Amino acid sequence: MALRTLSAKNAAALDQELMSAGAFSIDQLMELAGLSVSQAVFKLQPLNKGKRILVACGPGNNGGDGLVAARHLHHYGYQPTVYCPKQSKNELYQRLRKQLEDLKVPFTSDFRTALQSTDHIVDAIFGFSFSGEVREPFPGVIEALRETKVPVLAVDAPSSWNIEEGPPKDGPGKGFMPEALISLTAPKPLVKWFEGRHFVGGRFLSKEMAEKYGLDVPKYEGLDQVVEVGVEGAEKL
Amino acid sequence: MALRTLSAKNAAALDQELMSAGAFSIDQLMELAGLSVSQAVFKLQPLNKGKRILVACGPGNNGGDGLVAARHLHHYGYQPTVYCPKQSKNELYQRLRKQLEDLKVPFTSDFRTALQSTDHIVDAIFGFSFSGEVREPFPGVIEALRETKVPVLAVDAPSSWNIEEGPPKDGPGKGFMPEALISLTAPKPLVKWFEGRHFVGGRFLSKEMAEKYGLDVPKYEGLDQVVEVGVEGAEKL
Repeated sequence: MALRTLSAKNAAALDQELMSAGAFSIDQLMELAGLSVSQAVFKLQPLNKGKRILVACGPGNNGGDGLVAARHLHHYGYQPTVYCPKQSKNELYQRLRKQLEDLKVPFTSDFRTALQSTDHIVDAIFGFSFSGEVREPFPGVIEALRETKVPVLAVDAPSSWNIEEGPPKDGPGKGFMPEALISLTAPKPLVKWFEGRHFVGGRFLSKEMAEKYGLDVPKYEGLDQVVEVGVEGAEKL
Repeated sequence: MALRTLSAKNAAALDQELMSAGAFSIDQLMELAGLSVSQAVFKLQPLNKGKRILVACGPGNNGGDGLVAARHLHHYGYQPTVYCPKQSKNELYQRLRKQLEDLKVPFTSDFRTALQSTDHIVDAIFGFSFSGEVREPFPGVIEALRETKVPVLAVDAPSSWNIEEGPPKDGPGKGFMPEALISLTAPKPLVKWFEGRHFVGGRFLSKEMAEKYGLDVPKYEGLDQVVEVGVEGAEKL
């Protein structure tokens, strides 16, 4: 049975409702989202299998989730490196960067070189609000992600994929299929085309909100902030 | 070996430094603190041993940690009930309450009655900024905590204890010894007199900050946000 999915438009509406009627702050939601991402990395890449995690962050909230994840990964004992080429003016984004700087987490401006010495990659470049064109410097980064043999965990969407229509038919992301995907709050329609391991994270959704948006609250175990929902496309679950 | 402790004054200074130079928001810190508290409850009171958790919240940040913990406990599958008799005007505190209301977590105004039908209690009444007098309605609540056979987890301090000098020599908290304590960020001097199980939580301290404040970063395991540091007073660890 497939988990029900959340369109890009409804994902934005749900986030907005969590922050208005739901009284969550973006700080809280991003903390919990990034924590979920870090737990998915822990499950995919146990510490004793290689600690070097390259976290590629875009300029928006998806990138912010990546920055939070990098901080938690540091505390778990990983060695994260952050690629974050766009200087976001967003105040929270800047604070998340500062928190990483204080932990001496290295930032790199050379993604292809960093790729040569990492054990795992987090793709937090574009999330559910992505549409249209991949702008510089990200086309080359996405090509590198497509070509690398290092496993990639995509956050909410493989970057460059269309949220509703899945993998791009041309451009840098054509043929890009990450090893794993973590859907935050709920899977987006693109999971229909996704063939890797699939996690859901963001353990804060109430039953009422899930019902309102036609979603399922997945069955998390114990203290887990993520749950693996299947190894194939959500349609076949 | 005892973990080094953090005085009330330095605990306040460290929090302030995390939020100014460290670029953390109170929302982030409280989310991580409350998450730690919820994980300590999970370790002390496994779900199959009774799910009813009574969370007693004071009007300050200690109470806020309790509200966050109650939310996470709900998502783990517990049945939290919140006692929160003071209407804090603090905006974050009000939002944390709203988040619980949306989850249909019940609030009670009758602590002694609620105590009759719970499996575990979280004492989030007073934290490291407490000193002096226990004001109404808390003297009776602390007496009830002292008398009950239901296990109590105190957050940062058994409420009514002096942060530097430990258990009160008279008043409602005289003889109050909770089953467990979770020290957030670092143990306070009162742990010297504490005789129950002792956890440390708040996995966000950098080595530099720990050194600056003369603290130890405890050895957390895996994804845990808490670590049990000993079953006796910290002095004897």
